[in-house]
Amino acid sequence: MNVKALWERYQHHLCVCPSIGMQLDISRMGFPDDYLRHMEPAVQNAFHSMALLESGVVANPDENRMVGHYWLRSPELSPSPEIRREIEQTVKSILKFANAVHTGSIKPEKRARFTRLLCIGIGGSALGPQFVSDALGTSHDRLKPFFLDNTDPDGIDRVLSEIGNHLAETLTIVISKSGGTIETRNGMMETAVAYRKNKLKFEKHAVAITGVGSKLDNEAINRKWIAKFPMWEWVGGRTSITSAVGLLPMALQGIDIIDFIGGASRCDAFTRNPVTSTNPAALLALMWHYATDGRGSRDMVIIPYKDRLQLFAKYLQQLIMESLGKEKDLDGKTVNQGIAVYGNKGATDQHAYVQQLREGVNNFFVTFIEVLEDRTGRSIEVEPGVTSGDYLNSYLQGTRNALYENGRHSLTITIDRLEARSIGALIALYERAVGLYASLVNINAYHQPGVEAGKKMAGAVIAIQNQVLAYLHKNSGQSFTVEEVAKAISAKESVEVIFKVLMHASANKDHKIKRTAGKEIFSSKYESSR
Amino acid sequence: MNVKALWERYQHHLCVCPSIGMQLDISRMGFPDDYLRHMEPAVQNAFHSMALLESGVVANPDENRMVGHYWLRSPELSPSPEIRREIEQTVKSILKFANAVHTGSIKPEKRARFTRLLCIGIGGSALGPQFVSDALGTSHDRLKPFFLDNTDPDGIDRVLSEIGNHLAETLTIVISKSGGTIETRNGMMETAVAYRKNKLKFEKHAVAITGVGSKLDNEAINRKWIAKFPMWEWVGGRTSITSAVGLLPMALQGIDIIDFIGGASRCDAFTRNPVTSTNPAALLALMWHYATDGRGSRDMVIIPYKDRLQLFAKYLQQLIMESLGKEKDLDGKTVNQGIAVYGNKGATDQHAYVQQLREGVNNFFVTFIEVLEDRTGRSIEVEPGVTSGDYLNSYLQGTRNALYENGRHSLTITIDRLEARSIGALIALYERAVGLYASLVNINAYHQPGVEAGKKMAGAVIAIQNQVLAYLHKNSGQSFTVEEVAKAISAKESVEVIFKVLMHASANKDHKIKRTAGKEIFSSKYESSR
Repeated sequence: MNVKALWERYQHHLCVCPSIGMQLDISRMGFPDDYLRHMEPAVQNAFHSMALLESGVVANPDENRMVGHYWLRSPELSPSPEIRREIEQTVKSILKFANAVHTGSIKPEKRARFTRLLCIGIGGSALGPQFVSDALGTSHDRLKPFFLDNTDPDGIDRVLSEIGNHLAETLTIVISKSGGTIETRNGMMETAVAYRKNKLKFEKHAVAITGVGSKLDNEAINRKWIAKFPMWEWVGGRTSITSAVGLLPMALQGIDIIDFIGGASRCDAFTRNPVTSTNPAALLALMWHYATDGRGSRDMVIIPYKDRLQLFAKYLQQLIMESLGKEKDLDGKTVNQGIAVYGNKGATDQHAYVQQLREGVNNFFVTFIEVLEDRTGRSIEVEPGVTSGDYLNSYLQGTRNALYENGRHSLTITIDRLEARSIGALIALYERAVGLYASLVNINAYHQPGVEAGKKMAGAVIAIQNQVLAYLHKNSGQSFTVEEVAKAISAKESVEVIFKVLMHASANKDHKIKRTAGKEIFSSKYESSR
Repeated sequence: MNVKALWERYQHHLCVCPSIGMQLDISRMGFPDDYLRHMEPAVQNAFHSMALLESGVVANPDENRMVGHYWLRSPELSPSPEIRREIEQTVKSILKFANAVHTGSIKPEKRARFTRLLCIGIGGSALGPQFVSDALGTSHDRLKPFFLDNTDPDGIDRVLSEIGNHLAETLTIVISKSGGTIETRNGMMETAVAYRKNKLKFEKHAVAITGVGSKLDNEAINRKWIAKFPMWEWVGGRTSITSAVGLLPMALQGIDIIDFIGGASRCDAFTRNPVTSTNPAALLALMWHYATDGRGSRDMVIIPYKDRLQLFAKYLQQLIMESLGKEKDLDGKTVNQGIAVYGNKGATDQHAYVQQLREGVNNFFVTFIEVLEDRTGRSIEVEPGVTSGDYLNSYLQGTRNALYENGRHSLTITIDRLEARSIGALIALYERAVGLYASLVNINAYHQPGVEAGKKMAGAVIAIQNQVLAYLHKNSGQSFTVEEVAKAISAKESVEVIFKVLMHASANKDHKIKRTAGKEIFSSKYESSR
């Protein structure tokens, strides 16, 4: 396309959203002129489904749940006065709690003030808080945040070691919607031991965010934790950032949660507009559909040109891949949907993989995110009349052009300024785009049936391990090969799992299993060293 | 495949590498029995090319360069005594320098000791040091590391603000092979201003790593920086981690670089073995070839079950995508090669995108990385007889099985223990796998012609910006639309760039450009406010 035609296309399609300080440019996606017209009925249908969802119909049929994350920032739209009250009450109590912590009226057992924040959670209970904390935190945060988002022993040690002797002034938030997430429970138990070793009572430093009546909820009540905040069944983990899951850590860190919710709310209002060409969420969904042939045939590469947005792609991996990566459509047909998402930040990524994007396998489309304001203060000149930010901007434009020249497609989202409001809007934009896209391809975006299988199989591994270790300890003094153990406990079908379990158990002192190397790895013998 | 057959396949194919404490499991890749035999001639050819490369022939023909990263850890294999001496000398001088910094015999201008380390570099001069620093760092690092890897003004402010008034005890290393990388220069200039504002001389805190005779090299000499270390033209940025680029920050941080080099060297020795079935680098390359049909048809998802390895996928994005993402093969044929790489860490990622991996679009293969040793100390029991590490291990096994059950392929790399030696080995393993794979698909893994285009176009954007701003300031008192400016400076073909440049310039106070909103965004007017 020649320069004049491109400029006309740019002007024609630029979606300007003044109320949220945002623009979406779709001109560098190669869709033909009649594409939007052709898709319009499907988009209108998606708007309709979204309106129903927002009104409180059961939009997650498998789990028989309403889907209510939009109410969190517009409680007046809640389907019942109870829900509205709960949402409003929770925001109020979060503000009150954070204020009490900041002023020291809520304080740790042995110190005057809380100065650190440890968030224990995984997936939907970690990625949002981590992203926002990194995007909006400063070196002057009211509480300095740390995260435990795994059941990696060394990883836990590392975080606790970084906190060091500040543990006495660390507020720990345990986040689990179900209250039974094992990684989170393990992180909590290890952390509780660390408090104890420091002669501190865990419960005097602990706050829970969980569903009412969950195991974690009961623990918080019975052990008299400092506070607890609710999660609701109508909020999915990956869309829980505007619930207590996101708001409590943000408020404690010192981020303006009212601005954040406000940004999300304004974006929701703007993207409820059913005129496709002026609705950035609908346009995003359409571009995903165009780029991936409505079946994930291209990866979505997210490159924000702003360090503070470097975790956004990781956040979107969950939001998009867990929502869209589905085996069946709503009619039960096998469709194996999804869109793979990756990316870090520009200009940095230009020095990592833009080589492949420009010249290599053309299996992706890029979303550039541009932030107009470079920094809060003034800039120095790195050349006469040129700032570091001018270069950042030029790299984005240069890469966009270089990709286009080679037939690689890109979207560009421009935001005026990186602040709580715009981050809220950005998240709301993608939440809605995901919902609309799910309608376009006829899938349920709000369940995750595939996650259970791995958990179940992990449980089976633990059960086998228990049997294996019990057998070896019962027969201490004797040593066995993996196959002998498998036969002895009647688990020949699990021999490979037993091999892996014994390799792991004998590499750690905890289980008191000694491995004696055989002639080759599979003839090694294992015995109890109790 | 039934359980018995799977176990036999596992035993048959497990590649055990005792000298580097590693195993590679390829049994869960679906290749047919005769695949390895069929590929053997191509693999032997790849071994042959690699042997030539290691002997010092010009293996990067476009740039007429030798490719010598393997010599860095086995200097005795260098093609000339000069190169050997330079390598050995550099390691010695790094150890000496780090020791002098640690003991305080090299010290900052106004303090007794350096306690912080700021590395300024991008791409190959950042990803390696960042990965290793995160993988091997502790809360007791000799110098606490920080990184500036972009030209984002706010990002620079943020890092400098985190360092805060420790700047006086911060050693800054500027890393650029060419000595002319603009992002790095900008970061350096902004940092130098920060030192100056703190009444400190930058040069009394600065060290350079760069090619002899480069702009940066001359700056370091002329301004009498504390020290400088060499980069060589025969080391590519993305394989420079065992040169001063990686070793100097590691040594300063307190990581054992001799162990690190030793691990890489042992892995090199192990993977020079031309017996394919016992060579993990060759097997990796073959599995990539099998999984992606030798043309990048599937993404490589890297999931290490260890927090410390969470940047490994990001490191591999550069190593793999920049090496393999090529338009032309060695015969000049258009092939658009490459393999997309993404991933973070497990079990965490199970709660993000394993839903899609298990059920969604089947456009990937997974590489699990397992670390047998959980932590250095003992573990608590989170259930009777079960540790957090047992769960981590069980999640890996469970996910591997759940994916296999649904026809998704995976590799598993097992390492005994995470330490300098094994990280060195892991990097060397992937470096060689990349080289061998490049031979299998007949491409040059050691150039990056596609990176230039974006840089050139960025330069053009800066040139346009200079013209635009000069015009507005020259005609101050008058305001212009974007199209008027384009016409006036005879750059109508760049009108879109001018629009973007003016949106950015008017959003920042530095350029003194005032924007007056028009009826719609394209009729806004711009004028100088000088």
